[in-house]
Amino acid sequence: MAKKNAFYAQSGGVTAVINASACGVIETARKNKDVIGKVYAGRNGIIGALTEDLIDTSKESAAAIAALRHTPSGAFGSCRFKMKSLEDNKLQYERLIEVFKAHNIGYFFYNGGGDSADTCFKVSQLSEAMGYPIQAIHVPKTVDNDLPITDCCPGFGSVAKYIAVSTLEASFDVKSMAKTSTKVFVIEVMGRHAGWIAAAGGLVADQGIPVVILFPEVEFDQVKFLAKVDENVKKHGFCTIVVSEGCHYPDGKFLAEQGTRDAFGHAQLGGAAPVVANMIKDALGYKFHWAVADYLQRAARHIASKTDVKQAYQLGKAAVELAVKGRNSVMPTVHRISDEPYKYKIGVADLKDVANVEKFMPKDFITKDGFGITEKCRRYLAPLIQGEDYPPYKNGLPDYVTLKNVAVEKKLPEFKL
Amino acid sequence: MAKKNAFYAQSGGVTAVINASACGVIETARKNKDVIGKVYAGRNGIIGALTEDLIDTSKESAAAIAALRHTPSGAFGSCRFKMKSLEDNKLQYERLIEVFKAHNIGYFFYNGGGDSADTCFKVSQLSEAMGYPIQAIHVPKTVDNDLPITDCCPGFGSVAKYIAVSTLEASFDVKSMAKTSTKVFVIEVMGRHAGWIAAAGGLVADQGIPVVILFPEVEFDQVKFLAKVDENVKKHGFCTIVVSEGCHYPDGKFLAEQGTRDAFGHAQLGGAAPVVANMIKDALGYKFHWAVADYLQRAARHIASKTDVKQAYQLGKAAVELAVKGRNSVMPTVHRISDEPYKYKIGVADLKDVANVEKFMPKDFITKDGFGITEKCRRYLAPLIQGEDYPPYKNGLPDYVTLKNVAVEKKLPEFKL
Repeated sequence: MAKKNAFYAQSGGVTAVINASACGVIETARKNKDVIGKVYAGRNGIIGALTEDLIDTSKESAAAIAALRHTPSGAFGSCRFKMKSLEDNKLQYERLIEVFKAHNIGYFFYNGGGDSADTCFKVSQLSEAMGYPIQAIHVPKTVDNDLPITDCCPGFGSVAKYIAVSTLEASFDVKSMAKTSTKVFVIEVMGRHAGWIAAAGGLVADQGIPVVILFPEVEFDQVKFLAKVDENVKKHGFCTIVVSEGCHYPDGKFLAEQGTRDAFGHAQLGGAAPVVANMIKDALGYKFHWAVADYLQRAARHIASKTDVKQAYQLGKAAVELAVKGRNSVMPTVHRISDEPYKYKIGVADLKDVANVEKFMPKDFITKDGFGITEKCRRYLAPLIQGEDYPPYKNGLPDYVTLKNVAVEKKLPEFKL
Repeated sequence: MAKKNAFYAQSGGVTAVINASACGVIETARKNKDVIGKVYAGRNGIIGALTEDLIDTSKESAAAIAALRHTPSGAFGSCRFKMKSLEDNKLQYERLIEVFKAHNIGYFFYNGGGDSADTCFKVSQLSEAMGYPIQAIHVPKTVDNDLPITDCCPGFGSVAKYIAVSTLEASFDVKSMAKTSTKVFVIEVMGRHAGWIAAAGGLVADQGIPVVILFPEVEFDQVKFLAKVDENVKKHGFCTIVVSEGCHYPDGKFLAEQGTRDAFGHAQLGGAAPVVANMIKDALGYKFHWAVADYLQRAARHIASKTDVKQAYQLGKAAVELAVKGRNSVMPTVHRISDEPYKYKIGVADLKDVANVEKFMPKDFITKDGFGITEKCRRYLAPLIQGEDYPPYKNGLPDYVTLKNVAVEKKLPEFKL
């Protein structure tokens, strides 16, 4: 096999551990120098490939690359950019091939979620479709945990841990205040279509916290919901609510879209949490507090799950090992063997089976009343938040790395996106 | 000195480290059994004293009390309840004395902020005013950091660390996404009157993050603010905004009070963060994300500052030592000796100088443009977030203690609040 360079890019919303996968890819490529030359990273994801804006990762020290393992966000920049199909935009694919040729790139590692798996799948077909030999391997990443086949997605375990820890801590707080003040605490979490992240809030029920979860999978029923909250407050003195941003009414309208307008009549983009909190105040009169975790949850490397960090690295490493073995159009996966003790192995899936398939919460992970998680769900989630993997600190703050990100010299004319 | 029991209560909004102070009080009292008998905690703060709802902390194991050091929230319950003056409600003070007499209480430890210091001061006057011998010592606690004389307040260092870490992590995230997606991130933090917590977000500027802070101390100027955000986005590609919940217009109206109404015309309680975010979207068109940390920030024991935890414990310990020495109407303080290396000693303040005095950010802690912190402020804040003090974990979650909270048998008739 002639020695070729590799292209690596980060795609979509970043996570606390996507850089751990980058670390796995780059460190493993460096160990396979007989097969893989340099690793070029796309600046801002696939856009970097299309605009020939490549980063030469060989300019980074071993220490800097190792530090990616404990640094959240996308060290090379990510993007939200979905490539069209080959038929709809052949120009883009031809440009990709030009860039690959110009820089002797034979390996394409794409680190992302569902849309990115689809892009990676399309690139993996270029050998056949356009005669350019490329091995495209997808490295799974998404806090939404919605990729099929793999038991879980890197990024999810850490956001799940963050939400479980935060829900526990805020619940302890509201419990302390409930006698004379706040009785209801609402935390809004990510997950527009799938309730995996919201489900993680349910892990605190083990510690006697009365928690009500609003999943995107369950149509919102205001009467039932208010009754459940009231029951909890009357029984326990307080109630915690975890609401998914994707929670919606039977007609599909999100809770966050309340037609809220400011004093000037402008539509306001609010969150689901204040809507739920105000609803409780109006109907039950309980004093509330609410939080919207937003980026804090997916960037929270300081409380990342050790299991998640390890798997993110392993999947990056496995992707390169698959490439070295000559594989194309695949994605390394986490294959669970047992829940307790938690055992898994790294498996492999064909990209054709991954692209454009969304994995939702199984129905039997949600309790019959629609507001909680089942024991089956708890057994699934529990191992994913196991272990702490603290970053090093300097002056009281995590010592995250910012790479030099040295550009590779361009060889081609400009390309307009 | 005849042996007397002690009363301890937690007051106002709880913090990540108020239980560390409780731990300091109880462990030190247990070491002074020749002087102090039992420590009775008020269930839900001072309300527990008035209603004779006392918790016998001697029923808790040494391990459980030790675990308070790493457990956030108020283990005995807190309350928002301000006692009126002796003239306005003599009945309440007479009741307090009845309860103290019935349970042989000679020491009153009150763990709270400004309002609580005032209550503690009133109680400290009871010996003179009503002839009941009591030593009242205040243990400082407030995330707002607004108590006078003491260099800082337990609770603040940990919330400052949480906000600095979260702002750093979310800024790394938005920086990764800025090319094609989110360019502005807004985080709303606590602090209705004083901008200490918001200032902590400014610590990330050291790491090259373009951060704009909206303090309650600085009247909001929309034109100047938008220009500053635009300048940052144009220069750095992104911008982070830390907005204090207390940020307001020149006429005193809070940003959060936008007269926002839902589809039915009901007034909506929103946060300042979505208001700021929508303002930027409308004027500059930048895609945004926003978070409201709310209780997550003050409950975040998982990322508490080691300095803060240590000081919280020390001040609880010092309060008991002051009592043993026969002091009344005082509050132990943190007295800073130097910034770098950080050195301090535990001092003492008279409660008459503490009660009803609010400490604001010094003017020279805020940059001239009103959007950042000065080097002087950085030097003040930096030591307070130093060090990590991780709680133990069990099954992936912090192993926080819930006490038995065994009630002391009542001896008096009921008292209506």
